[in-house]
Amino acid sequence: MRFENKDSLKKFINDIKPANKKACKLAKERLDSLAKPLGSLGKLEEISIKLAGITGNVKNSINKKCIIIMCSDNGVVEEGVASAPQYVTLAQTINFTKGLTGVAVLAKESNSDLIVVDIGINSDKEIPKVYNRKIRKGTSNIAKGPAMSYEECVNAINIGIEMVGKVKGKKYDIIGVGEMGIGNTTTSSAVLIALTNCVLEKAVGKGGGVTKEAFEKKKVVIKTALEINNIDIKDPIDIISKVGGFDIAAMVGVFIGAAYYQIPVVVDGFISAVAALAAVKINPLVRDYLITSHCSKEIGYNIALDELKLDSMVNLDMRLGEGSGCPIAFSIVQYACAMMNNMATFAEAEIDNGYLDTVRSEDDYIV
Amino acid sequence: MRFENKDSLKKFINDIKPANKKACKLAKERLDSLAKPLGSLGKLEEISIKLAGITGNVKNSINKKCIIIMCSDNGVVEEGVASAPQYVTLAQTINFTKGLTGVAVLAKESNSDLIVVDIGINSDKEIPKVYNRKIRKGTSNIAKGPAMSYEECVNAINIGIEMVGKVKGKKYDIIGVGEMGIGNTTTSSAVLIALTNCVLEKAVGKGGGVTKEAFEKKKVVIKTALEINNIDIKDPIDIISKVGGFDIAAMVGVFIGAAYYQIPVVVDGFISAVAALAAVKINPLVRDYLITSHCSKEIGYNIALDELKLDSMVNLDMRLGEGSGCPIAFSIVQYACAMMNNMATFAEAEIDNGYLDTVRSEDDYIV
Repeated sequence: MRFENKDSLKKFINDIKPANKKACKLAKERLDSLAKPLGSLGKLEEISIKLAGITGNVKNSINKKCIIIMCSDNGVVEEGVASAPQYVTLAQTINFTKGLTGVAVLAKESNSDLIVVDIGINSDKEIPKVYNRKIRKGTSNIAKGPAMSYEECVNAINIGIEMVGKVKGKKYDIIGVGEMGIGNTTTSSAVLIALTNCVLEKAVGKGGGVTKEAFEKKKVVIKTALEINNIDIKDPIDIISKVGGFDIAAMVGVFIGAAYYQIPVVVDGFISAVAALAAVKINPLVRDYLITSHCSKEIGYNIALDELKLDSMVNLDMRLGEGSGCPIAFSIVQYACAMMNNMATFAEAEIDNGYLDTVRSEDDYIV
Repeated sequence: MRFENKDSLKKFINDIKPANKKACKLAKERLDSLAKPLGSLGKLEEISIKLAGITGNVKNSINKKCIIIMCSDNGVVEEGVASAPQYVTLAQTINFTKGLTGVAVLAKESNSDLIVVDIGINSDKEIPKVYNRKIRKGTSNIAKGPAMSYEECVNAINIGIEMVGKVKGKKYDIIGVGEMGIGNTTTSSAVLIALTNCVLEKAVGKGGGVTKEAFEKKKVVIKTALEINNIDIKDPIDIISKVGGFDIAAMVGVFIGAAYYQIPVVVDGFISAVAALAAVKINPLVRDYLITSHCSKEIGYNIALDELKLDSMVNLDMRLGEGSGCPIAFSIVQYACAMMNNMATFAEAEIDNGYLDTVRSEDDYIV
């Protein structure tokens, strides 16, 4: 990778630590001592081992939760590949801050905060409660040339890392990654194909719900973008700069930042999964910090998860984006912590015969 | 079905009402007016439509949650089909009330109550905080004869309905169904085969984790039980009385009771799914009240879900039983309610330009 003067990014990438294997081992030992058939709590057990590897502690708790939402526009929408008009990016970014969108409503239900970042919305408006980190008013059209320069891409990644630094300072225990950017399933599919060399048909879905004509157009546009941009497929940053978007780049930064700052981070949805895969290609240790969420209905999602060697936890046929599955994933992580922290060991679960002598009445048997 | 003097059960079964179709239609209309691609919140949307059908209201909330756990012993364990000794049924029943088991810990995390019922534990002990509805100290060995009499089975079902009546009186908004009974994957597999006529290999799993020898024995025992008991496969009550258990029968009662009292009820795990299927075979309208949970690793689970024409929501490779997935399902139902109640419609989500004039500073952008 070319970093030019971006030594700070190089440092973040190179200083990522692997999971604490000793803590993972201790966590596994405690799980196996709990009063249940071995391994019978499945992924809840895997999550609690992963958390131990991240924090170094066998017992963990998730109190402060946030979702970082990267919002930006994509020049490729001028090709007619998206189901919604471009102004929806701005409108929904504003609606995040007002608690009106899907992710905002679910985040509130789970007592999670939103951190909304304008990384490149096509608007001059200053939006209250949104971090203004606008690189440019939307990327260029990938069907005609690169989305952005290499330097812009590095800047966007650094902004993602910067946001995790803020989150670390505020002592959040877990991060989710969301996005808003009309046209970003097109760019994500293009990035996914370049990262994995998979066939186009397995990576391109209907996004928000385009027409048959727009879907055909979308595939042609992606094929063109991959052909004309002289991509260095060995360099994920080059790939994103050529056929990605500011949102994807900044999400890559969030994943790298989460690994660097040792905070568990939830991969939620197609665009998030593509960004996570790019981050893992940049440094495979990032994988130790990733927690999955729902299985997106967007077709390319499974390609990305397979490459990440990860499984989804939730199967709700969701395809809204925004990071809307993160709150559900957070809940499951909290259940995993409760299991690890509060279940009895086999020794503790033995019958205390004295307990049976307690006087009883049937007045209130609800425990 | 033969009811003999059990007219009350007949009344409960016959008085179940179907989902309120008008409320379902209104719920669907509101969902389609929310600011998101049509149907993009998948099963969260299906759940909120189902809740509308159950309560008659488009907007619902889940405040009081409980899990009814049916605990009983199975005579068939003398055949050596289970991985744990029989006293574990009693020990874990006590541990439910002490908050020490898997389901107890997860229920507490989700602010759900447990209602623990001794429907037939092999013990004379009175257990504090457990409803004593013991029919008998465990069923008879199904490899040698019927598990129980038809009348005992009807009694157990009626007890399940009675418990839902109590829950209804205490204004719970949702019920989960759990169980504790060493040997109950054996009885559940036998019931499943009799209900569906599926092949034995697809219905019998390793339960809590038996040895290869015990697993082979388990299959032989189930085959024998199905052959020697002269089962009327058209009558689910006869099936359960011959090769089931008190726990399964009482769980059938909970599903019937939930439908009768119009409370949503969560199907969680293999034994629960078999009981739900039996309840639906008794009255197909029960299906309108069922909400799924995690996909159990126990092999027969998917056979039961396919017959129920239901999909799991969560994929955590869990196989603990106890109703341990119910708290996670409750959380997802709560997210579905939040979406329905709080998301903006397309009209509400329009940009309010005045909002953009607010003075801004970057001090606290966390929303």
